[in-house]
Amino acid sequence: MEYKFSDRIAGLKPSAVREILKSTSDPEVISFAAGNPAPESFPVDAIRKVSAEIFDEQPITALQYGITEGYAPLVEKLTEIMKERNHIGTDNDSLIVTSGATQVMELLTKSLCNEGDVIACEDPSFIGSLNCFRSYNCSLAGVPIEADGIDTNALEETLKNDTDHRIKFLYTIPNFQNPGGVTMSWEKRKKVYELACQYDIIVLEDNPYGTIRVAGDDVPAIKTLDTEGRVVYAGTFSKIISPGIRVGYAVGPKEILAKMTVGKQTEDVHTAMFNQMLVYRWLCEYNLEEHLSNNQAIYRKKLNLMCDCIDSELGDAVTYVRPEGGLFIWCRLDDRIDMLEFCKRAVEKKVAVVPGTAFLTDTAGTTPYVRVNFSTPTDEDIVEGVKRLGQVAKEMLAESK
Amino acid sequence: MEYKFSDRIAGLKPSAVREILKSTSDPEVISFAAGNPAPESFPVDAIRKVSAEIFDEQPITALQYGITEGYAPLVEKLTEIMKERNHIGTDNDSLIVTSGATQVMELLTKSLCNEGDVIACEDPSFIGSLNCFRSYNCSLAGVPIEADGIDTNALEETLKNDTDHRIKFLYTIPNFQNPGGVTMSWEKRKKVYELACQYDIIVLEDNPYGTIRVAGDDVPAIKTLDTEGRVVYAGTFSKIISPGIRVGYAVGPKEILAKMTVGKQTEDVHTAMFNQMLVYRWLCEYNLEEHLSNNQAIYRKKLNLMCDCIDSELGDAVTYVRPEGGLFIWCRLDDRIDMLEFCKRAVEKKVAVVPGTAFLTDTAGTTPYVRVNFSTPTDEDIVEGVKRLGQVAKEMLAESK
Repeated sequence: MEYKFSDRIAGLKPSAVREILKSTSDPEVISFAAGNPAPESFPVDAIRKVSAEIFDEQPITALQYGITEGYAPLVEKLTEIMKERNHIGTDNDSLIVTSGATQVMELLTKSLCNEGDVIACEDPSFIGSLNCFRSYNCSLAGVPIEADGIDTNALEETLKNDTDHRIKFLYTIPNFQNPGGVTMSWEKRKKVYELACQYDIIVLEDNPYGTIRVAGDDVPAIKTLDTEGRVVYAGTFSKIISPGIRVGYAVGPKEILAKMTVGKQTEDVHTAMFNQMLVYRWLCEYNLEEHLSNNQAIYRKKLNLMCDCIDSELGDAVTYVRPEGGLFIWCRLDDRIDMLEFCKRAVEKKVAVVPGTAFLTDTAGTTPYVRVNFSTPTDEDIVEGVKRLGQVAKEMLAESK
Repeated sequence: MEYKFSDRIAGLKPSAVREILKSTSDPEVISFAAGNPAPESFPVDAIRKVSAEIFDEQPITALQYGITEGYAPLVEKLTEIMKERNHIGTDNDSLIVTSGATQVMELLTKSLCNEGDVIACEDPSFIGSLNCFRSYNCSLAGVPIEADGIDTNALEETLKNDTDHRIKFLYTIPNFQNPGGVTMSWEKRKKVYELACQYDIIVLEDNPYGTIRVAGDDVPAIKTLDTEGRVVYAGTFSKIISPGIRVGYAVGPKEILAKMTVGKQTEDVHTAMFNQMLVYRWLCEYNLEEHLSNNQAIYRKKLNLMCDCIDSELGDAVTYVRPEGGLFIWCRLDDRIDMLEFCKRAVEKKVAVVPGTAFLTDTAGTTPYVRVNFSTPTDEDIVEGVKRLGQVAKEMLAESK
C-alpha cells in the first residue's frame, strides 16, 4: 500500500543528530555527537527522596489529570523565581509549563505562523527547533552569528527586506548558542529588542543552557527588556535537574500564552503531573544556587579538558571561539580538510561528531564546521576521542600537501 | 500591543469541558463534567514500589534523554501484549510510545493532512480530538452514531460524495464512545474496514476505554482486520494505571509511524523516560488482567448506581443507551426541556454536566443531549447530584405545561 503524506511532513528528515545518536549505540564508539547533560549533574538522591514523598503524600494528584497551564504550585513558584532571580516577567506576562522547551518552539509556531510564513533565526542553529519550524511549512531566514552573538546588521537587513512582513518572529539562543557556543553581548541584546520593536516581530528567546555558565558574567535576558510584550522566553529543567523528565516552561505575553495553551490541549493535554511535582518539590526543598554551582564545576572541568585536548591534538587543524558555558564547541576545520570526509573518517576511528551542515537553515548548504559535545563523554573518552580526531586531521592535512 | 495569530489557532476555542472543569474548582459543586478515571482505580502502592525501584536501580536511564520512538523495553513489551492479548499488529506494523493518546491523533493529523483536508468522524465525538483536527485547519465530516456504533450507511454516503478525495482518515472510538457511550458491533467494524479499503482512507481507531468494560463481551478491534495496513490504533494507560503520567501508544503501519516519529521529535523529543519505565516495570511485575478486573468492578458499581439514580430521578425527562463500559452516559433530554437552560440551572444547583453541543462537529449545531460522567464523583455525590438534576428537570417539565 502506498501512503500519501502531508506536505509538511513529506520532506522532513529525522534529526541528523538523533539519527547519529542511534547509530552510536555501539559501545565502542566515543560519542561527541550527543547533547546530553552530564549524568553526574543529576541530583539523583534528592529526586529519589522527593519522588517517595510525592507518592506517599499526594499520590492521587500525581496520577490524576491536571490542567493544561501546569501544576499551579509549580507555576507560582517558577513565576516567583523568574521574577526574583532573572528579572523576567511583568503583569502582562504569564507562565505555562511545557513538556520540555522544544514544545515552546512548537506551540509558538503553531500560534503565530501560517504556512508560508518566515522565521528569522541564527544560522547555524539548533536543529530540533529548525525542524519544528519546517514542520509548519515555514521558511527560515538565516542570520549569521559572530563571536558576540547574532550579526545585528545582517538581522536589520533581513528585517528591512521583509517588505510584505512574512517574518513572524526571531528565534535566538543568546547564551552559549547551539551549535555556535557564542553568547550574545548586552549591546546586541538591546539592539535585537530595538529591531523587534521597529519591525514589529516577536522574539522567541530560547535559554536552555543559561545556568551552565563556566566563565564570565551572566548577561540579562532579552526578556528583561520587554516593555512592549513581544518576547516569549523558553526555559527548561533539562540542564538543571534532568532532561528525561521533560519539564520546560514559557514566560510571555498572556494573550500569546493563552493561545499556546489551547494548542497544548490538543497535543498532550498537560505535562505529566508527577514530573511537575518533582520539580516543584525539588525547588522547595533544595538549594538551587548551590546545585547550579556544583553543576557549573562539573561542566567547567569538562569544557577545559576538551579545549586543552583540542588545542594540543588539533591545534593545526581547528579554530574555535571558546564558549563560556553550554554543552558544545563549534570547531572550524582548516580549509584543507573536507568536513564530511573528516566526520566519516572519525566514525571509522570510532569517534562521532556532528557535521555542521545539520545546523544550517539551508539544508543544501556547506560549512567547514563540526560540533563536538563535552558534557556526555567521560574524561578518559574526551582525551582518547580528541586524540583520534587529531590523527584523522593529521592524516588529512598530510594528504593535502 | 496587538497580536496577530495564525489562522489555525485564531478561531480555536479552549475545550469547553476543560473550561467547565476549571470553573468547578468550587468544592461545593458536584461535577459530572469531568472525564477523569476513578482515583480508587490507580495502583498507588504498586506505583510507589516500582518508582522506588527505578530510582534505586536505573536513575540515570530514568533521568537522561531517550529516543523518540520510546523506551525500548516498553516498546517490546507493549508490542508483545498487543499481539498476544489483542491480536493487534503485523510484521508491517510498528509501535511508538506517545505522551498520552491525544498525541497519536495529533501526530497522525500532522502526518497525513494538509490544511483544507477533511477528517470523517463520529458526530458527536471527543472534543479533544475534534479540536486537534481543527488545529490543523481540517474540516470535519460528521457521521451520526446509532446504538450499535457509527451509522455505516451514512459513512458510505459521506465517502461516496467525497469525489475529490479530501477525506484522509476516519476517526472512530469503537468502544464506549465518548460522549455517546455506544459500542460498535463486530459487523459494523467489518463494514467500516471494508469501506476504508474501498474508498482508500486510513482509519484512526482510538480505544481509550476498551479495558473498562463492565458488561457484555469484548469486540475485537478494527485493527485486527488490518491486512492492508490502513489502521492506526491509539492506546493509553490513562484508564489503566494513571492519566497524569501521560503515557499512550500507537500501533500502525511502519511507514506512517516513522513519519509520526519525525513529527514527535519536533514536539516533545520523547515521552518522559521515568513515566515509560514506570509502565514497563508495572507491566512486568503486576498482573494486568487482575488489575483490570478489579477496576472493572469499581466502574461497574458506579455505572450501575448512576443508571439507577437516573432511572428513578430523571426517568420522565431523560432517555439513554446504557453503556457497557467507559466513563460516560449520554443523556437525551425530553423535547420539552431546553438543553442549555437545563445545564445552566444545574450549575445554579451546584451540579455540572457538559452540554452536548461541545461534542458536535458543527460548533453552531444544537442537540438535546448532555454528557454525564460517573467515574469521578463519589457514590454519595452521584446520588445527591442526580437528585438535584431531577429537581431541575421536574421544574422545567412543570413550566412547559
